[in-house]
Amino acid sequence: MTEPIRVAMLGCGTVGAEVARALLDPARSAALSDAAGGPLELVGIAVARADVAREGIDAGLVTTDADALLDDAAPDVVVELIGGTERAGRLVRAALEHGASVVTANKALLASRLKELTDLAVARDVDLLYEAAVVGAIPIVRVLRTSLAAERLTSVLGIVNGTTNYLLTTMTREGRSYDDVLADATSLGYAERDPSADVDGHDAAQKAAILASLAFGCEVRDADVPRTGITAVTEVDLDAAGRMGHVVRLLAVAERVGEGAVSVRVHPAMVPKDHPLAAVEGATNAVFVEGADAGPLTFAGAGAGGAPTASAVLGDLVCAARNRRVRRTERAPSLGRGLALLDPGDVVSAFYLAIEVADRPGVLAAVAGVFGTHGVSIQSMEQIGLHDDARLVFLTHRATETAMAATVAELEGLDAVESTGVLLRVVEETPS
Amino acid sequence: MTEPIRVAMLGCGTVGAEVARALLDPARSAALSDAAGGPLELVGIAVARADVAREGIDAGLVTTDADALLDDAAPDVVVELIGGTERAGRLVRAALEHGASVVTANKALLASRLKELTDLAVARDVDLLYEAAVVGAIPIVRVLRTSLAAERLTSVLGIVNGTTNYLLTTMTREGRSYDDVLADATSLGYAERDPSADVDGHDAAQKAAILASLAFGCEVRDADVPRTGITAVTEVDLDAAGRMGHVVRLLAVAERVGEGAVSVRVHPAMVPKDHPLAAVEGATNAVFVEGADAGPLTFAGAGAGGAPTASAVLGDLVCAARNRRVRRTERAPSLGRGLALLDPGDVVSAFYLAIEVADRPGVLAAVAGVFGTHGVSIQSMEQIGLHDDARLVFLTHRATETAMAATVAELEGLDAVESTGVLLRVVEETPS
Repeated sequence: MTEPIRVAMLGCGTVGAEVARALLDPARSAALSDAAGGPLELVGIAVARADVAREGIDAGLVTTDADALLDDAAPDVVVELIGGTERAGRLVRAALEHGASVVTANKALLASRLKELTDLAVARDVDLLYEAAVVGAIPIVRVLRTSLAAERLTSVLGIVNGTTNYLLTTMTREGRSYDDVLADATSLGYAERDPSADVDGHDAAQKAAILASLAFGCEVRDADVPRTGITAVTEVDLDAAGRMGHVVRLLAVAERVGEGAVSVRVHPAMVPKDHPLAAVEGATNAVFVEGADAGPLTFAGAGAGGAPTASAVLGDLVCAARNRRVRRTERAPSLGRGLALLDPGDVVSAFYLAIEVADRPGVLAAVAGVFGTHGVSIQSMEQIGLHDDARLVFLTHRATETAMAATVAELEGLDAVESTGVLLRVVEETPS
Repeated sequence: MTEPIRVAMLGCGTVGAEVARALLDPARSAALSDAAGGPLELVGIAVARADVAREGIDAGLVTTDADALLDDAAPDVVVELIGGTERAGRLVRAALEHGASVVTANKALLASRLKELTDLAVARDVDLLYEAAVVGAIPIVRVLRTSLAAERLTSVLGIVNGTTNYLLTTMTREGRSYDDVLADATSLGYAERDPSADVDGHDAAQKAAILASLAFGCEVRDADVPRTGITAVTEVDLDAAGRMGHVVRLLAVAERVGEGAVSVRVHPAMVPKDHPLAAVEGATNAVFVEGADAGPLTFAGAGAGGAPTASAVLGDLVCAARNRRVRRTERAPSLGRGLALLDPGDVVSAFYLAIEVADRPGVLAAVAGVFGTHGVSIQSMEQIGLHDDARLVFLTHRATETAMAATVAELEGLDAVESTGVLLRVVEETPS
């Protein structure tokens, strides 16, 4: 009989409990062992509190001593589902140093230390797999690591945060305000009580960093990813975008600029209605990849949730176990390419900007003059009367972030300008 | 210095020439070698006619003797792009028996002999890779072989033929007839002079067989896939589908039925407008996969064309070369599961059927009676007057293919029925 592959788990929250129950259920476990080429044995689960009842999970497997589990249980594969960077990072390093392969869903850890951990895994000749860390069940990590390894990728655009996509698409469909829809989403459990990780773009920036690293072969850290969240997007912006043939989505963007540079960023953007990402509604996630030869590719599915995330973890676990049996490892991503991160100010796109001004003679000329001063050319303008005020909605031609930021700053200093709204980048039409 | 991986090519048509040029171009070749972990060397290309000029390809590499190339050049990887089943099958077997890994885009060969060739590759401990054989640049083959290997898949629905999707979506958008749009597509080169492989569903049936085999782990051959093409679909059907909230697409379907059976088939179908496949327009391909845990996943991109197909071939070539270096192989799909193919007559769905009848009293009752006789329950009916005739458009509740076929046969025997149109299966709404 084949020796079992010994699996240790770190963490047993929603996803962890799903993974553990799959490994402990006889029918599921048999199917997983079949896919892994031999039996999988769950040897222990390290948790913060052992006195919590966990349905379907033998209490004898549970320990609060993660270090002892790694030291004494001789796991072949360690599944890390603790989250966070400090303790999880220390334990993942310890597991790799013990010669175990690691499967993790920890995007925060990978977004800050992908190269360090990849190098360690390569040095120990073990696998470090993390399909579940980016957009849940959508298998984009392996696609970038393997299928597209020979492709000259030009850009990756992702809807990688379900909460913000739910908020934006609900606001659009129902014509309601951000605060109103967020309040509902919070009470329904679709948004966290403190939604800032989602709505301020932190979560998306972590995923952007990982996707960019894999797509372009150079390490990008989340701290290097400029981000704008969705809190300043109003129903007025969504309505104006609709009239211009666009929808608004929070995008994680990674694109090659020329031969030697990459731009990575997170911001709400106007997406043309016929772009594949415009059809992505609600909490669904999607990643749009363009390659020089492959052309545009779209991958969509559930980006979060216990079952889809557990499915991605189990897929990696089966791969790691099978590799272990045949003493091989999956191709590690190369992260050492000499690409520079483009200065965020040098990123070029068309922009959408709505401003509210006093409705009196000469204001439009003054406002338009500010765009001209900074070399930002106006593509279209719409004026809407609001009692004594007016709303001016501008769509610009392509300009740099620096020029556009200077334009907005100067506009905000004008007497007649009451407020400027969110700046939306405009995604170009896809070649069909 | 690392020994180069020796690559032999069989066939040098559109895709082959793209692959060869990539291997011979210094910059591309360096990037591919980088991804493969060492140099790739193109050692020869077997072609039918050596006297054709091939731009960018050294004539010294070209030979008409494929057997000698396999016997004498000791290739590590053989790229088969000849197509067809007889000669290509013999050469692929010969390559595997020589201990070479094989990369192929030959869907006809794989759809008839996937298990035989997989078993041979496993026995020789070499790779048999074929990402390019199914929907070009969309990496669905590796996703099914690897990422979703642990997932309990329930169904695969694919738009896997670009020509028919172009025809159907153009007919829909422009309200034109099949013959009219086909004539244009033929003169523009979007359809073959003899379009039967596409429009009769043969190409889709080959891809359905391969996708079903990989998704469910049991060999399905194209000869076992019942198929209906699109030649009988009229602009009237497309218009009626639109009014019912659907679009019409030619689908390759593979679905699990109960625990022990699989249904695989190709037919035009009514797809709800909010289904991810309804947004797939023109020559784009897409595959929609549902898993018990992963939920719905959609993969879309270019399904054909020289560059996208070459991209998939090169991706496989890089994987095969890297595996060769580290003396491993990619996980071979298991094709030995004991699933039975469901009798096509037992497949259940709702149906759309349009029939033309003489417009006289009693006809509707007679027609409705025929549905009732065969136990097919009518969900909705629309009657449209046409001078002395009338068109009756039926949507049924779920019924078996056998019951529906018997209904249509009896309807065709009725005096008052002038003609029956195409039978469209109705795809159910996706759970959101």
